[in-house]
Amino acid sequence: MAVQVGILGATGAVGQRFIQLLDDHPTFEIAALTASESSAGKTYREAAKWRVETQIPDDVAEMEVGATTPDDVSDDVDLLFSSLPSSVAEEVEPQFLEEGYVISSNSSNDRMADDVPLTIPEINADHLGLIEVQRDNRGWDGALIKNPNCSTITMVPTLAALDQFGLERVDVTTLQAVSGAGYSGVTSMEIIDNAIPHIGGEEPKMETESRKLLGGFDGSELSMHDSTVNASCNRIPTLDGHLESVFVDLAEEPSPEEAREAMRAFPGVDLPSAPDQLIHVFGDDEPERPQPRLDRSRADGMQISAGGVQSTSSGLKYNCLAHNTIRGAAGASLLNGELLVEEGWI
Amino acid sequence: MAVQVGILGATGAVGQRFIQLLDDHPTFEIAALTASESSAGKTYREAAKWRVETQIPDDVAEMEVGATTPDDVSDDVDLLFSSLPSSVAEEVEPQFLEEGYVISSNSSNDRMADDVPLTIPEINADHLGLIEVQRDNRGWDGALIKNPNCSTITMVPTLAALDQFGLERVDVTTLQAVSGAGYSGVTSMEIIDNAIPHIGGEEPKMETESRKLLGGFDGSELSMHDSTVNASCNRIPTLDGHLESVFVDLAEEPSPEEAREAMRAFPGVDLPSAPDQLIHVFGDDEPERPQPRLDRSRADGMQISAGGVQSTSSGLKYNCLAHNTIRGAAGASLLNGELLVEEGWI
Amino acid sequence: MAVQVGILGATGAVGQRFIQLLDDHPTFEIAALTASESSAGKTYREAAKWRVETQIPDDVAEMEVGATTPDDVSDDVDLLFSSLPSSVAEEVEPQFLEEGYVISSNSSNDRMADDVPLTIPEINADHLGLIEVQRDNRGWDGALIKNPNCSTITMVPTLAALDQFGLERVDVTTLQAVSGAGYSGVTSMEIIDNAIPHIGGEEPKMETESRKLLGGFDGSELSMHDSTVNASCNRIPTLDGHLESVFVDLAEEPSPEEAREAMRAFPGVDLPSAPDQLIHVFGDDEPERPQPRLDRSRADGMQISAGGVQSTSSGLKYNCLAHNTIRGAAGASLLNGELLVEEGWI
Amino acid sequence: MAVQVGILGATGAVGQRFIQLLDDHPTFEIAALTASESSAGKTYREAAKWRVETQIPDDVAEMEVGATTPDDVSDDVDLLFSSLPSSVAEEVEPQFLEEGYVISSNSSNDRMADDVPLTIPEINADHLGLIEVQRDNRGWDGALIKNPNCSTITMVPTLAALDQFGLERVDVTTLQAVSGAGYSGVTSMEIIDNAIPHIGGEEPKMETESRKLLGGFDGSELSMHDSTVNASCNRIPTLDGHLESVFVDLAEEPSPEEAREAMRAFPGVDLPSAPDQLIHVFGDDEPERPQPRLDRSRADGMQISAGGVQSTSSGLKYNCLAHNTIRGAAGASLLNGELLVEEGWI
Repeated sequence: MAVQVGILGATGAVGQRFIQLLDDHPTFEIAALTASESSAGKTYREAAKWRVETQIPDDVAEMEVGATTPDDVSDDVDLLFSSLPSSVAEEVEPQFLEEGYVISSNSSNDRMADDVPLTIPEINADHLGLIEVQRDNRGWDGALIKNPNCSTITMVPTLAALDQFGLERVDVTTLQAVSGAGYSGVTSMEIIDNAIPHIGGEEPKMETESRKLLGGFDGSELSMHDSTVNASCNRIPTLDGHLESVFVDLAEEPSPEEAREAMRAFPGVDLPSAPDQLIHVFGDDEPERPQPRLDRSRADGMQISAGGVQSTSSGLKYNCLAHNTIRGAAGASLLNGELLVEEGWI
Repeated sequence: MAVQVGILGATGAVGQRFIQLLDDHPTFEIAALTASESSAGKTYREAAKWRVETQIPDDVAEMEVGATTPDDVSDDVDLLFSSLPSSVAEEVEPQFLEEGYVISSNSSNDRMADDVPLTIPEINADHLGLIEVQRDNRGWDGALIKNPNCSTITMVPTLAALDQFGLERVDVTTLQAVSGAGYSGVTSMEIIDNAIPHIGGEEPKMETESRKLLGGFDGSELSMHDSTVNASCNRIPTLDGHLESVFVDLAEEPSPEEAREAMRAFPGVDLPSAPDQLIHVFGDDEPERPQPRLDRSRADGMQISAGGVQSTSSGLKYNCLAHNTIRGAAGASLLNGELLVEEGWI
Repeated sequence: MAVQVGILGATGAVGQRFIQLLDDHPTFEIAALTASESSAGKTYREAAKWRVETQIPDDVAEMEVGATTPDDVSDDVDLLFSSLPSSVAEEVEPQFLEEGYVISSNSSNDRMADDVPLTIPEINADHLGLIEVQRDNRGWDGALIKNPNCSTITMVPTLAALDQFGLERVDVTTLQAVSGAGYSGVTSMEIIDNAIPHIGGEEPKMETESRKLLGGFDGSELSMHDSTVNASCNRIPTLDGHLESVFVDLAEEPSPEEAREAMRAFPGVDLPSAPDQLIHVFGDDEPERPQPRLDRSRADGMQISAGGVQSTSSGLKYNCLAHNTIRGAAGASLLNGELLVEEGWI
Repeated sequence: MAVQVGILGATGAVGQRFIQLLDDHPTFEIAALTASESSAGKTYREAAKWRVETQIPDDVAEMEVGATTPDDVSDDVDLLFSSLPSSVAEEVEPQFLEEGYVISSNSSNDRMADDVPLTIPEINADHLGLIEVQRDNRGWDGALIKNPNCSTITMVPTLAALDQFGLERVDVTTLQAVSGAGYSGVTSMEIIDNAIPHIGGEEPKMETESRKLLGGFDGSELSMHDSTVNASCNRIPTLDGHLESVFVDLAEEPSPEEAREAMRAFPGVDLPSAPDQLIHVFGDDEPERPQPRLDRSRADGMQISAGGVQSTSSGLKYNCLAHNTIRGAAGASLLNGELLVEEGWI
């Protein structure tokens, strides 16, 4: 039986990726699309300025877009995906949660709340237990689950794989694609022949979300991972795919090959949109990989890539990459939605 | 009286920058241009495919290009600038040195040799004393002085400014412009909508050259600076200007403002091509600076920029930037040439 | 004696070019800067997000910005430059004209009005006679003079030079830089690895303005040039510099060399910001020129370039190029301002 | 039964597209791969620097690459695709033809020969009759069929559709992607923030090939189409997808809607790799389409797009677009190969 899903904020950059990823999904069926008041009542084709490389699915194109309020979403909808601006989500998500909806949200609000699971299925599926705590705390019938920021999710799988060697410190520098800022976020005059060494709010997100994702859950409370993360975030003239240079200090001294093997061996999950292997690792015969354009679409944009692993005096350095609007946004929420179904929360 | 200078490898990307920078120089006068055998005998206009934004100076355009051998360079030439490929320089520079020429070289060969000064005038002018050692060792009448790699020179002034707080460790990630690889070094298909997380040989250069530049000289021997440098080098779709994200561990704990002040106060030198202030520092009201396109041309491309200074648990993080083919290559050699004249070596 | 000038709309992309070009101008002195209501009362440094590669002049940075109304501009101002959005200019320019100000405007409103001179000094300085007609018609003490659209001005000098051979028809395709749309006009996601075959309103502007510029003036009335202009306008991922491919049908059959000679010989004007030679022409030994990045800055961005001249069965084909925000916008208005002074209108 | 095919020049940019397109082809099976002498004996994975966004098919990766001589290609191969540099093809293709191989070639040599079919299946499949003439003339057992240049093929389908209105003259300007020049054809320093108004040999190709494609064949001899084609070719910073601005003079005066309808109605062919509809036409509600990045991949890169159709005084103007390395190169040869099979030549 198909799960009826809705998309809150369906016309934006991440919203369009949701549409694209849900086309031909084995179990999810789009039943509701919402956007701002001004789009309500239009067909999706009229409301969205479609800019994804694949064509807009015909049935979605003719669906009517509603306003982003519970009144405009049918009760038959089992699961909502949210890619609202965080300032809007902050206000609107609780309205849906009170009505009993389950939301898998990409919006950045509440990610660090004590009773909100911030989840990557392959990393910390057990954090879903927090939903009970959340319901107790907030009196919601629904449930709110968040995925991390695109720059966080690019790096955390590799850190999780290396944590067996005692992760102590991370110095990470990002080279982020313009799509991370939405369709109008970065103007062409800002970025052609240029780079911008600042993305508002991004560095604190990486520094805190990483430690929550890698932290423990004892059934009632979360603990942050006991490491230090320092992040420096840059925007570069790339469309999709965040590339990150990572320096890690480790308690033990694995060789580069042992580190690569740990990444390759990191277990995946059995969910419809999950890649067979979570991390594709390039050996030292391909030091110039991963590259955004060549590697962002591995496993339909859901696989992390890593490469350039080398030893330093206190640990390792390497590069990692993910498709920021797929694995780092719409695909991350989608996978969390699949996990919610799998674990019986829906 | 004008100093007669020659340029070895005058037709390449860095060679063209030499021509541009020497146009209207107060004391240097171009008296010789060399290139590969196949260009010998042509005018410079014919031999060089001129691609700098300013027009080729008329008198240089009509000069005859010689082969890169001492026979093709007049004895009246007092100083040679070299931007030869290192494999060529390795073979040819010694021929000129034996003939008594003084060379200020941008080529990477011999940079780490014990008896070759690797110099940035504002940082370690005293290393020029090594020339005596060099002459003793090698029996040359001439002298060889090197400037560091473009990615090294972007960062070292900021490290020198912060060393008063006890520099212990550096984790640096570069976002380097394509011009650093020469005119044909990076194809358009490699870099449009992309980034490349590897530049052959670049990381070891940064890791060793930095410590030589910051090291001491006791009048007869160099010592390397007692710190660790870990570098991760990336190519991005920018024409000129290397941007670098730096994490430094310091023995003391300066505030970001103290660090900025230390950079601003770092002394310059009184040489014709030197900027009045070595490092332009952006405050925390302009976190999105420095940017390659907006800041690479400060002080005609000879000034370093820094910004985004913030505290971390073990020190600081910040960004720095320099024009890689001016301050990082041709301008670096030129400034070393001016220093050689100032200090009486020519 | 310095002429006191004001800039209406001083904080935008073209406004910033005005500031840059007026720095060190021999006869013009900036005495007033206006912007939108929300910027009024701020210093220029605060009001403008300065993005030109050269640094903001210190004295201008500290000037107070006024609102764009006659009340906020001193009576001592002799000449106003306008780079307002056309919808604003439409409303505001008449207010200044009634108060007696002389305006050299880059805004597109009123360009095709029968009694408004649309002028390029080298092409149709005699059209300034229309000011008398304008004053009679409108009862203004002031005077309004317009310069053409950036894509028009790139092509018209070459057409003017070829008109001696009987210009009959023009099919022109443009490759326009993103700066023509202002700082936020083209997003990075729209244009990286892409091109856009449409610029709203641009084609009719080229098709009509060209014929007005090349038309005659009998002392009381203008006549449009008797030719057909068909334009197709495209946006490409270039920062500055519009490149255009032109096919012209001519009554006579000049050889490519005769056409090049006609362009080279086209007379310039003796005004402070005018280039010595209006059109720089590349011969058939440099078929790959002009190029935006290499040629847009000729004569400080005020010179037109042309190249690739070849015969077709009905005339010629060639390419031309101009710096769109200098020769095509701020520099065009500035030159018209200099012409107004030279001809005694101020 | 599968047709055994070989690829001459399998490691280059177009060669890699052949591999990609032949993966999972319903009737063709790769049986031979050739490259230069230096690659012979290596596996394809070793010999090719794979740069297509999809991953290299596993079975192809392990195939041994041969030298480009008949000796290195098995007799079981029924059909060869050639993407050799034209200087190599000129010498090597006849060797294979003498041995009886049938070649569908993308190389530019011999395209305009009187007895070589230059074919787009949807446009002039009947020209295949020339193979008989070719065999008579040259004494070959094999057969040579060519597809046109990528910039030609982008435009010709639209011209063919409009020819019913009496095509008289074409003025076309191209905005071509860098991939058209091969992996190393355009350096990043040449094209970032730039455009190049010249592509060697491209304009004559468009001007002559178009008229051959649109010409007649009476069973023994070809006649060129009776129209004039003037082309101006430009390179822009786009990876894939040639965009072209076309002005056509027509004997009749169709409305834009009639022209669009003629393009939409132009018949396709029933071959495995052919799109259902040859030309996708955008209406005047989407004037900013087609765009290279958004439209190059329609029908897996095999569909032409057109838009922006407007009337001019002597006909029409419009834009068209095709994926230059798929529909304009590898896909064009592949489709011709499918036509050869369909028509019984193999």
